[in-house]
Amino acid sequence: MPETVGNTFQTRLVAAARATESRLDGLLSTGPQYGEIARPAHLVEAMRYAVLGGGKRLRPFLLIESARLFGAEGPAVVSAAASLECVHAYSLVHDDLPAMDDDDVRRGRPTVHKAFDEATAILAGDALLTIAFEVLAGIEAPAETRSALVVSLARAAGVGGMAGGQMLDLDEGSVWDETALRTMQQMKTGALFAYAAEAGAIFGGASREDCDRLRRYGAHFGAAFQVTDDLDDAANDAVGGRPSLVALLGPDVARAMLLREVEAAAALLASYGTRGNVLAEAVRSLAGTGISPTPTL
Amino acid sequence: MPETVGNTFQTRLVAAARATESRLDGLLSTGPQYGEIARPAHLVEAMRYAVLGGGKRLRPFLLIESARLFGAEGPAVVSAAASLECVHAYSLVHDDLPAMDDDDVRRGRPTVHKAFDEATAILAGDALLTIAFEVLAGIEAPAETRSALVVSLARAAGVGGMAGGQMLDLDEGSVWDETALRTMQQMKTGALFAYAAEAGAIFGGASREDCDRLRRYGAHFGAAFQVTDDLDDAANDAVGGRPSLVALLGPDVARAMLLREVEAAAALLASYGTRGNVLAEAVRSLAGTGISPTPTL
Repeated sequence: MPETVGNTFQTRLVAAARATESRLDGLLSTGPQYGEIARPAHLVEAMRYAVLGGGKRLRPFLLIESARLFGAEGPAVVSAAASLECVHAYSLVHDDLPAMDDDDVRRGRPTVHKAFDEATAILAGDALLTIAFEVLAGIEAPAETRSALVVSLARAAGVGGMAGGQMLDLDEGSVWDETALRTMQQMKTGALFAYAAEAGAIFGGASREDCDRLRRYGAHFGAAFQVTDDLDDAANDAVGGRPSLVALLGPDVARAMLLREVEAAAALLASYGTRGNVLAEAVRSLAGTGISPTPTL
Repeated sequence: MPETVGNTFQTRLVAAARATESRLDGLLSTGPQYGEIARPAHLVEAMRYAVLGGGKRLRPFLLIESARLFGAEGPAVVSAAASLECVHAYSLVHDDLPAMDDDDVRRGRPTVHKAFDEATAILAGDALLTIAFEVLAGIEAPAETRSALVVSLARAAGVGGMAGGQMLDLDEGSVWDETALRTMQQMKTGALFAYAAEAGAIFGGASREDCDRLRRYGAHFGAAFQVTDDLDDAANDAVGGRPSLVALLGPDVARAMLLREVEAAAALLASYGTRGNVLAEAVRSLAGTGISPTPTL
């Protein structure tokens, strides 16, 4: 049976998840490393619980496949993908805290602060964010590449990106029109997807133009992902007091927006010919049946 | 009047604090930078409150003076010092949270979660930690230097360093003998001081041997600092259920330990002749009257 593009995407998604998880398993060992004095077993256990508890590993997949588009693959790319997943996992752990979204369950399991306690959850998130930068700055790649990746990841995750987006999301004084919602989501969700795709291009030594293109692909991917997520959640018309885009615009407008984001993302890959097929199929799957995103992704 | 060594140390300490604060002020602006979409003003305000609220800036001082020992100075060194202070400030914000040490006051002002709220404090800490790596990876220095600094800072701050030390400190099952206390303090406090001094040497392109020597100087400095801190606190014989080294060993043994740490630190500088005087004076001041460390440093 000939391999179809869809098959390749699903196969690659699973392969990226396995490789990333295997690397995470190795990184999060209880033995002290590189002159560390000790690693508290309890804290390592909470970090592992947070990051090894499932998920489709979409962000690592985007990084790995974007790198492959520019000819880069291997252990260093997988380490960068694992580092990115540590940042994503940290954000979920902190967002779930009682002072934030106050969620008791994620991916069908107790959240970290329920399975352990609040202090451990805060520290596990902190330590996951920290180890992400340690891993990324230490991969086998030219130092210029490592530094550029650290800067990009920190910008995507920080006050002007993911953390800032969560702050906006929690702002009870916000007037949630479409612009405000999209800004918040571009920061909270989109920035890390944009980093994922751009990071692969940086890894592959791509031109500034190609890095920008992949970055925009990732941003459209993130926007499409968010709408799909909201559509799946449409039974709930509000999230902690703010409307979702679907609740605000209605499901028909939201679906049209989803298709626009998907096609904008796919169009950016046109210049890469068939080499862009896996990434194009990945984003198209958001509008189809290939992936069914859930809030747990 | 001839400048004395002590004078030089105090002068340099003040100069390092001013330079670091000026850089922090510039970094933590509300305008979005480098393609960021937005910086929530509320979050930036909390980050500024956390990091610009005073303190002697001992860690930045160590970094700046260690760099000077190896011939490096200028804006990039100050940026690295500011990045380090962001990490220190983040740790204070998170440690003060109700789920951790539950402190309402720091440096005579309400802690961040009291002045703002818990969610903002968690995010401000997260964003300070994140921007530290953005700044450090983006300074004007060879990419090898930047990557090495990021790896060292992350190791010092992470699961095998500061965050791990805080986890040990919170562990109610610990048996607090001298070894356990020292391990916890080496991780929670010592690792960041060790990084501070080592980072300056890395900056100056020092040999591996010199980097290690400065690292050990910083670790002894941190240990001395901790004992001084405990001696100042000796009125309280326990901190959240665990004894301090002073409570465990008695003030006389603790003072003898302080002197040993100070002399061990100063001895490491002997090979640098008079160029090491400022750093030697800095650590000796911990046993004298030059600095009076408080829990707010």
